[in-house]
Amino acid sequence: MSDKKIYLSQDEMPRQWYNIVPDLPGGLQPPLDPETKQPMGPEKLAAVFPMALLEQEMSANRWIDIPEEVREVLTIWRPSPLVRADKLEAAIGTRAKIFYKYEGISPAGSHKPNSAVAQAYYNKREGVKRLATETGAGQWGSSLAFATNKFGLECKVYMVRVSFDQKPYRKAMMHTYGAEVVASPSPDTAFGRSVLARDPETPGSLGIAISEALEDAASRDDTKYALGSVLNHVIHHQTIVGLETKKQFEKIGLYPDVVVGCCGGGSNFAGLAGPFMADMLDGSRKGTRFVGVEPASCPTLTKGVIAYDFGDVAQMTPLLPMYTLGHDYIPPGIHAGGLRYHGMAPIVSAMLREKLFEPIAVKQLECFEAGVLFARAEGIIPAPESCHAVRGAIMEALKDPNDPKVIVFNLSGHGLLDLASYEQFFEGNLVNYEYPAEAVAAATRNLPKI
Amino acid sequence: MSDKKIYLSQDEMPRQWYNIVPDLPGGLQPPLDPETKQPMGPEKLAAVFPMALLEQEMSANRWIDIPEEVREVLTIWRPSPLVRADKLEAAIGTRAKIFYKYEGISPAGSHKPNSAVAQAYYNKREGVKRLATETGAGQWGSSLAFATNKFGLECKVYMVRVSFDQKPYRKAMMHTYGAEVVASPSPDTAFGRSVLARDPETPGSLGIAISEALEDAASRDDTKYALGSVLNHVIHHQTIVGLETKKQFEKIGLYPDVVVGCCGGGSNFAGLAGPFMADMLDGSRKGTRFVGVEPASCPTLTKGVIAYDFGDVAQMTPLLPMYTLGHDYIPPGIHAGGLRYHGMAPIVSAMLREKLFEPIAVKQLECFEAGVLFARAEGIIPAPESCHAVRGAIMEALKDPNDPKVIVFNLSGHGLLDLASYEQFFEGNLVNYEYPAEAVAAATRNLPKI
Repeated sequence: MSDKKIYLSQDEMPRQWYNIVPDLPGGLQPPLDPETKQPMGPEKLAAVFPMALLEQEMSANRWIDIPEEVREVLTIWRPSPLVRADKLEAAIGTRAKIFYKYEGISPAGSHKPNSAVAQAYYNKREGVKRLATETGAGQWGSSLAFATNKFGLECKVYMVRVSFDQKPYRKAMMHTYGAEVVASPSPDTAFGRSVLARDPETPGSLGIAISEALEDAASRDDTKYALGSVLNHVIHHQTIVGLETKKQFEKIGLYPDVVVGCCGGGSNFAGLAGPFMADMLDGSRKGTRFVGVEPASCPTLTKGVIAYDFGDVAQMTPLLPMYTLGHDYIPPGIHAGGLRYHGMAPIVSAMLREKLFEPIAVKQLECFEAGVLFARAEGIIPAPESCHAVRGAIMEALKDPNDPKVIVFNLSGHGLLDLASYEQFFEGNLVNYEYPAEAVAAATRNLPKI
Repeated sequence: MSDKKIYLSQDEMPRQWYNIVPDLPGGLQPPLDPETKQPMGPEKLAAVFPMALLEQEMSANRWIDIPEEVREVLTIWRPSPLVRADKLEAAIGTRAKIFYKYEGISPAGSHKPNSAVAQAYYNKREGVKRLATETGAGQWGSSLAFATNKFGLECKVYMVRVSFDQKPYRKAMMHTYGAEVVASPSPDTAFGRSVLARDPETPGSLGIAISEALEDAASRDDTKYALGSVLNHVIHHQTIVGLETKKQFEKIGLYPDVVVGCCGGGSNFAGLAGPFMADMLDGSRKGTRFVGVEPASCPTLTKGVIAYDFGDVAQMTPLLPMYTLGHDYIPPGIHAGGLRYHGMAPIVSAMLREKLFEPIAVKQLECFEAGVLFARAEGIIPAPESCHAVRGAIMEALKDPNDPKVIVFNLSGHGLLDLASYEQFFEGNLVNYEYPAEAVAAATRNLPKI
């Protein structure tokens, strides 16, 4: 057997991101202006995003150069290792070869900094002094805190109140990297104050936090806004994960039969899967299967409808063409906070519409079971989000344990700052949730279908 | 410049541990039986340690084979990377080349599993079913939890009450790896019950926890005891760190001018420094400097005396030849819990007596400052213990910023489960402590000097 860990040299780190949009058979619908229902151009978004990112958002180029300044910061942890999960294989008794791409070695502990570094760079280049963003569980906020510090930008993070209180370590991490963090809703924005006036005890929500960060960015000349998933440019940035993984498989003379990732906003799954899908789309490879794993409590891909919907609860974003459970849907408080999103990235939604991958929904308890199994075998305690991918990979490996197929999944983050949720699992305090299809139908009835 | 990260292949992982004892110019005094004051042979310790570890403890062999079963588990995270801290160099403005050996990628997040895996293996091989141990901050308990699970042993961890309450994430980690954890003092041992009867609200101490684990091991036929530092065999196991680092420097054609590590029990520092010291002791290298960094609040090396002293507060261990502040010394509650130890490993004490390294004491606040600087530059948030080594390396690099000397330090662990202490640092709640030399003199007056 080759080494457990397959490394790339710094020189082998990709020099371009992959943009799958021109390769999608049915193309990608544009976002719509909620007022006119007409396609929305970059000019309306220029108040909150730098032009370079808007260009990437609309780009029809298959390849986008990664600036040398971005690559330089990425070398702090990239290329990330591809690891053979041989101890997991033995623990579950399969002849499948299971590999994981480990993104938890980044400063924030997940794949999120791959985009945060790029976003901070482009903002800096266009003279922006300060970024505002929201964070739920804290992964994205930590990533942007690190990235902005690297490029000498200020950073303000609106962190959902309930997470702000429950996850003090995430807050401490953002402080360590030099960001300002407030609980959202906050007294710092008009929208935050209005929510607090109605309900001073509100736990907050991602929708509220997005609105506060958008207001912050729109109301200050020196400030722009940054988002950690869903948008096309974020997914482009995350393809560095899949591009590296392809090179790593080349080194050991293998190619995956099954590619697995968890699905929240979509950048985690698409970042790994996209570059492999490209081989299927151009005909150079056949038969690769792609599996997107989502929580049963937030079954956007398996029970949602494809429609034009808002990206946020407060209806401040453009209308995006995507699978959605309806923008009013507040997923139950599962511990995979990064997967609690009502919609799905337009790119991933288009992939599903074209049947390029198979979505599956898994329950909370089986994900934590898989996470514990993985931790005892492979040493790394996975983030609750990544437990979904672990669970999906195990299911694939056990469909026929004698089939020596090659499975790769995105171990997108470690769970060291989520250990409280593991403890709740051990104490029997966690439950499964399932979102009934009828509820989805009711919630999405009035959305403009695609 | 070569790659930021220098990796070794699995095949390059060392196959033998290095035992520095036969190379120490003045040799090593044996431990003494507290009753007879005569050298203590292995038979008295056989009740709590397996024979294989006692043989290593007394071994005069320079090289000790690493069993294949141990290497197999170590491959889960080893070989660990050697990393060029080029961003730190730029941040502080030095021409020194700074490298760190990163042990934080292990399951427990530090170097501790290097010995835990070996100890679990030897106990398993001798038919032991269960290990008992103590843990302060939780690093060692987490490591032994992981290692015992790997070899199918049960594990019980007596965790100092104050840490048990303050560090719920460490407890959750030990549960994830399958260990049983109780707050010490506990009602599970006679000694624990006696302490609780006197003071039900006691915060506990490492000394009490050691006594409980020793009682547990001595009172059950199926159980032995495991210790995470101080002893010779632990230091042998940790030399894998330095041996790998030497190979990594060979790959890039460099050799360190200065080797830096933090000093608590001693295995962290000696694990990295020992194999380089060997080159000095056999005359093949000259002029390498070694710097051991300890907290000013627990200045064992810089203010302690070398004497025969107990390893624990309850006087249950043999008398060990070491630098000590007196076994009654309870260091103040600094956040580098792993460095709060009154004594120093006999091997490291002998190194100091022979003037093989330079000890320095640094204060708590300057260590956290160094940790924050490192985190912003290099992405990794260091454990408070490792911040001492970061601080030491920076001091060396800035002595003459134009001197392009090569510095390597042991980044022995990440601080992700210590972020609460960083938050206290930011909030201005931390203070410096210094332990006055007069107090040491008084506390060690009656110890048998060496």
